[in-house]
Amino acid sequence: MTVAALEELVAIPSVSGDPARRDDVGRAAAWLAKRLEGLNGRVVPTAGHPLVLAEWLGAEGAPTVLVYAHYDVQPVGEASAWRTPPFEPVIRDERMYGRGTSDDKGPMLAALGAVERLLEERGSLPVNVRILLEGEEEIGSPSLEPALLAHRDALQADVAISADGAMWSAEQPSLNVAARGMLAVEVSVRGPSADLHSGRHGGAVLNPLQALAEILATLHRPDGAITVDGFMDDVVELTGDDRFEIAEMPFDERAYRAEVGSPALHGQNGYTPLERLTARPTLEISQIEGGGRYTVIPAVARAYLTCRLVPDQDPQRIAAAIARHVLGRCPDGVTASVEEVPGGIPAYAMRRDHPALAAAEEALRAVYPGRRVLRTRAGGTLPAAVLLRRALGLDTLLFSFSSSDEGFHGPNEFFRLSRLREGTDAWARLLDLLAEKL
Amino acid sequence: MTVAALEELVAIPSVSGDPARRDDVGRAAAWLAKRLEGLNGRVVPTAGHPLVLAEWLGAEGAPTVLVYAHYDVQPVGEASAWRTPPFEPVIRDERMYGRGTSDDKGPMLAALGAVERLLEERGSLPVNVRILLEGEEEIGSPSLEPALLAHRDALQADVAISADGAMWSAEQPSLNVAARGMLAVEVSVRGPSADLHSGRHGGAVLNPLQALAEILATLHRPDGAITVDGFMDDVVELTGDDRFEIAEMPFDERAYRAEVGSPALHGQNGYTPLERLTARPTLEISQIEGGGRYTVIPAVARAYLTCRLVPDQDPQRIAAAIARHVLGRCPDGVTASVEEVPGGIPAYAMRRDHPALAAAEEALRAVYPGRRVLRTRAGGTLPAAVLLRRALGLDTLLFSFSSSDEGFHGPNEFFRLSRLREGTDAWARLLDLLAEKL
Repeated sequence: MTVAALEELVAIPSVSGDPARRDDVGRAAAWLAKRLEGLNGRVVPTAGHPLVLAEWLGAEGAPTVLVYAHYDVQPVGEASAWRTPPFEPVIRDERMYGRGTSDDKGPMLAALGAVERLLEERGSLPVNVRILLEGEEEIGSPSLEPALLAHRDALQADVAISADGAMWSAEQPSLNVAARGMLAVEVSVRGPSADLHSGRHGGAVLNPLQALAEILATLHRPDGAITVDGFMDDVVELTGDDRFEIAEMPFDERAYRAEVGSPALHGQNGYTPLERLTARPTLEISQIEGGGRYTVIPAVARAYLTCRLVPDQDPQRIAAAIARHVLGRCPDGVTASVEEVPGGIPAYAMRRDHPALAAAEEALRAVYPGRRVLRTRAGGTLPAAVLLRRALGLDTLLFSFSSSDEGFHGPNEFFRLSRLREGTDAWARLLDLLAEKL
Repeated sequence: MTVAALEELVAIPSVSGDPARRDDVGRAAAWLAKRLEGLNGRVVPTAGHPLVLAEWLGAEGAPTVLVYAHYDVQPVGEASAWRTPPFEPVIRDERMYGRGTSDDKGPMLAALGAVERLLEERGSLPVNVRILLEGEEEIGSPSLEPALLAHRDALQADVAISADGAMWSAEQPSLNVAARGMLAVEVSVRGPSADLHSGRHGGAVLNPLQALAEILATLHRPDGAITVDGFMDDVVELTGDDRFEIAEMPFDERAYRAEVGSPALHGQNGYTPLERLTARPTLEISQIEGGGRYTVIPAVARAYLTCRLVPDQDPQRIAAAIARHVLGRCPDGVTASVEEVPGGIPAYAMRRDHPALAAAEEALRAVYPGRRVLRTRAGGTLPAAVLLRRALGLDTLLFSFSSSDEGFHGPNEFFRLSRLREGTDAWARLLDLLAEKL
């Protein structure tokens, strides 16, 4: 797959979260279906943005691999922060700059390029390949699960491989073997039936913002440990192997603190920052709102809480635990309610003895000779991997060639062109290895 | 002063807080200056909206009274909540509906009407009268103090009488003898240098919203008592007389609870709700903001705290006490700052043995024969009374004919037309009595 192809695709502003870009998202899907013409590439409608499906099934008796990627991109954010326009890709210092270059149009084209090249060179592939390209990853994949179920037959495979994700660092080849889950709940505290004047009514009613602050202050111990009854019940404690695996990930605590800019790092005693970032659950207050900059006692105060979950936490059970905690601490004078926000996703982990993982490590060693291949964990969430397991029963190998420093979701996103070449080589090698190992 | 005059004045939308209404505020000032032509009525510029000044100083040897009122009005709020347009006054059931009818164009015209009538009937007034009409009361009187100082000589008097305020209830004549002070501070808690993704960074940094909630949760005891060191130091404890005076105010706890709509009333043990509403200080969280409805750890969290103060609390000392409390509880991992919002105002109280108070009680008894005249306290703040004392050394008698149920600051504000007549009679009587008693 050529750099020119990536330039073409990046120039299509397929921002799934922007209704004004709906046609552009469709154009990106059409571009990909055309590119995959030889594999029966087609645009398949969903309740939201379409999927692009394709397949090559000529490897009789060989295993079948489902390649996953997404062709939608994040909004550009503050336009003035971009050195060059986000949808006019330019190459500087062997990097292509533009929205979606790294997340994940570049890594996606590395995967598709490998399939193209093998077909060109050999006229066949070592395994059967199905391709699933999503147009809603950046908005939480709302249509993915029903679409997977609707197209179950066309998506049957032995394993899924995702081109999305990111290597932990650009310096060292790595494979993501785990991601945390996600859950959001909204807490509302109601007091008086309407906003009250603090002069006329101050002193006789409980202020919902005060009650909310007092409730939220009970969620954590001073060191950051979560105090919600039931929250930690199903958390699988880290094993020695887990801790060793995490300790192997490159992490400079001082550089990290400088990067985030906090006066000090913070978190539960007994765990390293990296353990807390990747393998321990969180309960964050992502928003509090209520009242205004005037002499008001607000009628309602709201908080939006977001959690990162680890195996084996169930989003619904955790939401219920938070609800019990909040309702149990709601003082007289106000009422509280807690609602789970739809879209909770459990944690994902790849079996460490999965043959696809071994194959991926071998493929990376081939492309990066003499370099160790690390196993890393993502602090974020991979809905696609969870949904592929839930809807299709598939394990997903994360095989990405973007790097965590490439500014995805921010301005001046870029993708290293060396990764396009290396990724294409590695994907080709991986498909060969999977023919043997799966 | 006729009902027609009030209709004319209410029809001028003198909303001081709306820059688009600047000309209308000016028109209301001009209307008043014209109405006061016979008393040298004139529009006097300030840094903001103008004052209207006037005087009649023909009562040689008699005391001088400074009549205060404001001609600006609140914004209309939600227009759809008004049964009839706010600036097209209509009369239904002997009440005039319209923004500013009760706060305080109606009560103001009762005062001016008494002066007009006495001059018409007698050709003279029993006391010297200076008139001071403000155009910025509803925006916190930012220009009043410098204007008072600039026009000190033109405002010299023995006592000030404010037409603004409200009687405690429409059923029983009353005089407001005290008002709480006001103070606002802004608390900011800063953690990371930019908003962080809760997946990538959750677990390693202290969330500023969490730290803010934990700090704010320490401001009160569960019963609502304020725990801030130094906050209560200068509070004058209620005497038996105070408690008796407050207990005399009509107050139905059950009806009040139904009115505010809270599931239960709330406040410090040892004080009645009415004591807490009128004579005890408060510390309210009027706003918390930070973050958003997505998976974010915000860089900054803010709270806007507003206090009602009682004698002898000094706004600056209280702001400093809050700042010490907050900074002293700021955990590692974030930094906090506290800023006093300019415009703090101490509490106001009228000396109970002031001769103007006795005169006012007598005037009310004359207009409402056979009814008891109560002394009441306002939970809110009266900047004008405080500023008149500070800038001119004057005590202010609060002599208002609006009632607290007349919907000022809300939709469908109205003024009882009976009060226009009664108010005019009472002001005329008061001026006669002040000639004897001051």
